[in-house]
Amino acid sequence: MTPVLYELRGRDDRLRFSPFCWRARFALAHKGLEAELSPVLFTDKSPIEFCDAFSVPVFKDDFGLATDSYDIFKHLDKHYPEAGMGPLIGDSLAESRLNFVKAYAEQVMAIGFFRLVALDLVKAIHPDDREYFQSAREARFGMSFEVFNNVEIARGILDSAFKPLRGVLGNQPFLDGDAPAAADYLVFGFFIWARIVSDTSPFGDEEDAADPMVQWRERMLDLHDGMARNATRASDIPE
Amino acid sequence: MTPVLYELRGRDDRLRFSPFCWRARFALAHKGLEAELSPVLFTDKSPIEFCDAFSVPVFKDDFGLATDSYDIFKHLDKHYPEAGMGPLIGDSLAESRLNFVKAYAEQVMAIGFFRLVALDLVKAIHPDDREYFQSAREARFGMSFEVFNNVEIARGILDSAFKPLRGVLGNQPFLDGDAPAAADYLVFGFFIWARIVSDTSPFGDEEDAADPMVQWRERMLDLHDGMARNATRASDIPE
Repeated sequence: MTPVLYELRGRDDRLRFSPFCWRARFALAHKGLEAELSPVLFTDKSPIEFCDAFSVPVFKDDFGLATDSYDIFKHLDKHYPEAGMGPLIGDSLAESRLNFVKAYAEQVMAIGFFRLVALDLVKAIHPDDREYFQSAREARFGMSFEVFNNVEIARGILDSAFKPLRGVLGNQPFLDGDAPAAADYLVFGFFIWARIVSDTSPFGDEEDAADPMVQWRERMLDLHDGMARNATRASDIPE
Repeated sequence: MTPVLYELRGRDDRLRFSPFCWRARFALAHKGLEAELSPVLFTDKSPIEFCDAFSVPVFKDDFGLATDSYDIFKHLDKHYPEAGMGPLIGDSLAESRLNFVKAYAEQVMAIGFFRLVALDLVKAIHPDDREYFQSAREARFGMSFEVFNNVEIARGILDSAFKPLRGVLGNQPFLDGDAPAAADYLVFGFFIWARIVSDTSPFGDEEDAADPMVQWRERMLDLHDGMARNATRASDIPE
């Protein structure tokens, strides 16, 4: 069978912005694998009813099923260990440290991106999904998206969150060294998520081209034949 | 020759609190190596004049010299790769991720410990070193130690800095997985530094024994026959 990656789609089928689905896309490109990219909505998960998954990404190939972006990394490393650019996760020591990068991206950095683009994100989401998505998040964060979405606060969180990343990327081109691997994809998922739904820069109204983080983002956008740079953005498609 | 580790000493020769020297001590214990622990002062570096090092730790053995805590890790991994508990740093992927843990510990977390114990630290330092040390740091931070040392602010910084570490340590006993290695020692250096000079807990006046960070600290204090737990603290020695 052709491998299939089930992804969240937005108001237009070309809008695929989920940070977790992007991790899986990058992982597939890293291994040089092609997959059919099959759309799912928050409010219509019938395409993934065949499995126990509660959310996307879901990946299926001849070896079986993987139902979470990190499980997809593991699945690909297990079944295609040396394909393409090689291992994503690495050995147990490398994986233990990857767990810290993952916790950092998800527990410290992600909220900055969310506060940067929440209102644009709602507009990029499929109309059927908007109420479900927004009300669930507003309940979780204890405030309306009008308050939650605050560019100044968001950039403050991000500038602080970028500090140790910048400390590393001043000395090596990728978080994973000379070439990207799982750590880069885990972190970059949030960058591409924000970029697809919004034109607001995480760095400020004027970006500093000498900033190692800006340079890393450009390298990540260029990867795999510009896969992320060429992804359709909300601003490309009239509402 | 017997390996020698040159370390900063405090007002009493038994007070050895430098976080960077502790990284080296842990690394030596990890490899099962014994070393002579030779004292150095900020204001008297004559013991390390034989080399180009500007600061301690400095390590010397039959294989040569290493003049920075991270270089000591590399030196030990190169010359004693499988000794004791095995590699500290790991392969290039593991090392790239270790660089992030290191940047995080030094650029995000360390300042919290410094603001927690700065005044106690000065009292633990050798009298000859105090003025040099304090005035250089006050100039760097742009405030007096009386202002800089603020337990409430410090615990706020630390609680925030511990968040992603806690996220990892809830799922694995050490930052480096089932056993400690370089990432644990890099981070823990700051814990033992604060612990030796001060009785003020980084966690609060009442610690939560169920907190994964508290549990990790206890495991780190127990390591290598309680090496860190048994280290002489400033409160053990009358001024």
